[in-house]
Amino acid sequence: MKFTLVHTDQSSDKSKARAGLLETDHGVIETPIFMPVGTLGDVKAMEHRELIEAGAQIILGNTYHLYLRPGTDIIKKAGGLHKFIGWNKPMLTDSGGYQVFSLSQLRKLSQEGVKFQSHIDGSKHFFRPEDVVDIQRKLGSDICMVLDECPPYPCSHEYASRSNRLTMEWAERCKIQFEKTKPLYGHSQTLFPIVQGSVFEDIRLQSAEELVKMDFEGYAIGGVSVGEPKEDVYNIARMNCNVLPQSKPRYLMGVGTPEDILECIERGVDMFDCVMPTRNARNGTLFTTYGKITIRNASYSDDFQPIDENCDCYTCRNFTRAYVRHLSSIQEIVGHQLTTIHNIHFYLWLTREARKQILNNTYSEFKTNLLAKYEENEKSRGLGKQKKVKRIPKDYETSGK
Amino acid sequence: MKFTLVHTDQSSDKSKARAGLLETDHGVIETPIFMPVGTLGDVKAMEHRELIEAGAQIILGNTYHLYLRPGTDIIKKAGGLHKFIGWNKPMLTDSGGYQVFSLSQLRKLSQEGVKFQSHIDGSKHFFRPEDVVDIQRKLGSDICMVLDECPPYPCSHEYASRSNRLTMEWAERCKIQFEKTKPLYGHSQTLFPIVQGSVFEDIRLQSAEELVKMDFEGYAIGGVSVGEPKEDVYNIARMNCNVLPQSKPRYLMGVGTPEDILECIERGVDMFDCVMPTRNARNGTLFTTYGKITIRNASYSDDFQPIDENCDCYTCRNFTRAYVRHLSSIQEIVGHQLTTIHNIHFYLWLTREARKQILNNTYSEFKTNLLAKYEENEKSRGLGKQKKVKRIPKDYETSGK
Repeated sequence: MKFTLVHTDQSSDKSKARAGLLETDHGVIETPIFMPVGTLGDVKAMEHRELIEAGAQIILGNTYHLYLRPGTDIIKKAGGLHKFIGWNKPMLTDSGGYQVFSLSQLRKLSQEGVKFQSHIDGSKHFFRPEDVVDIQRKLGSDICMVLDECPPYPCSHEYASRSNRLTMEWAERCKIQFEKTKPLYGHSQTLFPIVQGSVFEDIRLQSAEELVKMDFEGYAIGGVSVGEPKEDVYNIARMNCNVLPQSKPRYLMGVGTPEDILECIERGVDMFDCVMPTRNARNGTLFTTYGKITIRNASYSDDFQPIDENCDCYTCRNFTRAYVRHLSSIQEIVGHQLTTIHNIHFYLWLTREARKQILNNTYSEFKTNLLAKYEENEKSRGLGKQKKVKRIPKDYETSGK
Repeated sequence: MKFTLVHTDQSSDKSKARAGLLETDHGVIETPIFMPVGTLGDVKAMEHRELIEAGAQIILGNTYHLYLRPGTDIIKKAGGLHKFIGWNKPMLTDSGGYQVFSLSQLRKLSQEGVKFQSHIDGSKHFFRPEDVVDIQRKLGSDICMVLDECPPYPCSHEYASRSNRLTMEWAERCKIQFEKTKPLYGHSQTLFPIVQGSVFEDIRLQSAEELVKMDFEGYAIGGVSVGEPKEDVYNIARMNCNVLPQSKPRYLMGVGTPEDILECIERGVDMFDCVMPTRNARNGTLFTTYGKITIRNASYSDDFQPIDENCDCYTCRNFTRAYVRHLSSIQEIVGHQLTTIHNIHFYLWLTREARKQILNNTYSEFKTNLLAKYEENEKSRGLGKQKKVKRIPKDYETSGK
């Protein structure tokens, strides 16, 4: 993998927004980038060709889920995850750690690894750091992730520190295993470690510095989107980006709203993933250039405009709010398809547009204008600016945190 | 509407298979044709553009469902059903009668019409024959259907005869109302009556002859696929096609399996609709050129061939049985999308290919060969040839019967 920092935005003193190029054997990714979450080998309610149409350059897979179903052996037999799911562009897989902690039953953590029971059938499994590397070798993802522990929020300084120690040890063990093993399918793979440390600046810095010393090709910032205030997320992104090397990509795991993404791009983040656009789509919450709307509201029942007239997705080009509202309200599968297409299209437009503005040194203005529209829209909906993020995913579409 | 009988198959003495052209203001339909069922204004798990890609020339809408949700007023405000759902090709709507009988609670039949409670919220409604014409005027479907009573199977000769009497009266009243009213959206509409009479030849013939006298532009054959043996369906199709005018299209409602469609094309039927390809897709049953398969079977878990190598649908061009099995087994929405795309593609291939063979005077051979493969496949699966058809739809995707 090769990362090239193409340009850093000059639109304001504080902006550290970056445009980069991330080259993998499955293609080049233009950063900043949003990565749709393809939990079980598919992005929920969206066909691969529709992801391509929306401009997707890389998607996620969840090691925990794929390990349980269809199982690593079948994927290996298929020739890896790309072949198994028929996706020829880059893929990132997480380590499965987050799902073990959020979904599985009776998990038991030790220095050696984590023992857990499947949320599907109660079967018992054990993930050592070495195992998740081996599994990801079999999956053949372009970017693999180390096993980490994601501390809950809130947690004590002592807990966060102890947890980070384990995460550091596991990162080291993953790296050793990664270097001891080889890609199985003829394309190269890389391994990203995960900075932890909860909201504590000293641990965050120590965690980042220690991982930088180990020398990886890219770094993830984890442990956010677990219930902490938005400002903490932005601070964590700022603190960590300040110490992570300029020459390597930074991936903020599980973030977030359009506002979060814009704020964290400004702080120097290059890569994002979140289930929000897909999960919210299936609940009828749509993201637009003028704010967030709840398409199931009765007010849209005879509204024959497109969802967003600035959007050129299949849904907005062909259908009205009234039709989408009708299908979404009655939980028709096509309703989920049309809303998902729109939301993913919007998220990919957002990072694509951000990149354009960075290259043009106009990022800060772009961010300010779009956020003003979001804030105005939230106010007119009678909502405060801050909304609490759910700690535990409600279904099995889980981001790479 | 204009129907042109282009050619009658000469491949065998008994074949009455026809190729025709059905011209509507929304486009020309080449018959024989399968019409995908778009219950609530969408074909379940399939986008309009995917229907076009599969070769769909006309889709169905269900008056009962659309009347309840989103309601006729919203559709009228949108400028009719075509505009509301964004579908510019021909549409057929049923009368809602079948759903009143199969889905709604506390229905009460009288000569005047049928009183029923919504299956959604228990609200009370009354459909007179005149009402269903008025509703379909508001929907603006290219082909409207009369209100009829579909007798259960089995039923007595007396019941079937009495029921057919009511169906005849209602057909007359619908025709009068249809002639008294005008299309609302600038395109023309036509009205098809429905031949009834259960499995009784004398009533079937009487019903057909009486409707022919009333002079419609096309005729539907109803009251089948309600639990009777397959041979009865074929007999009914044969009996009714023999007395319906050569110069008018014949629509067999709610039929059926690929075998049923081929048998009934041979007996002179031009139009078909059935929820089977879409509903079965969501249960993992797929139709192919070599028979029916249950994709969720464990044997497909590491089968990396396409579902049907003779098929050029999106699913077969890009994905393996193993991947489709994985997604279908875990009920992923994309699994439903991929299986539905394949099944609809297959059904539309089937009627398109049938037309080609008719024009080529090779229909009988084509039918015999394909049915032989199906029979062989069923035998190898250890199933008998005959399978009972479910009487009552299990969910709200209901065909135009």
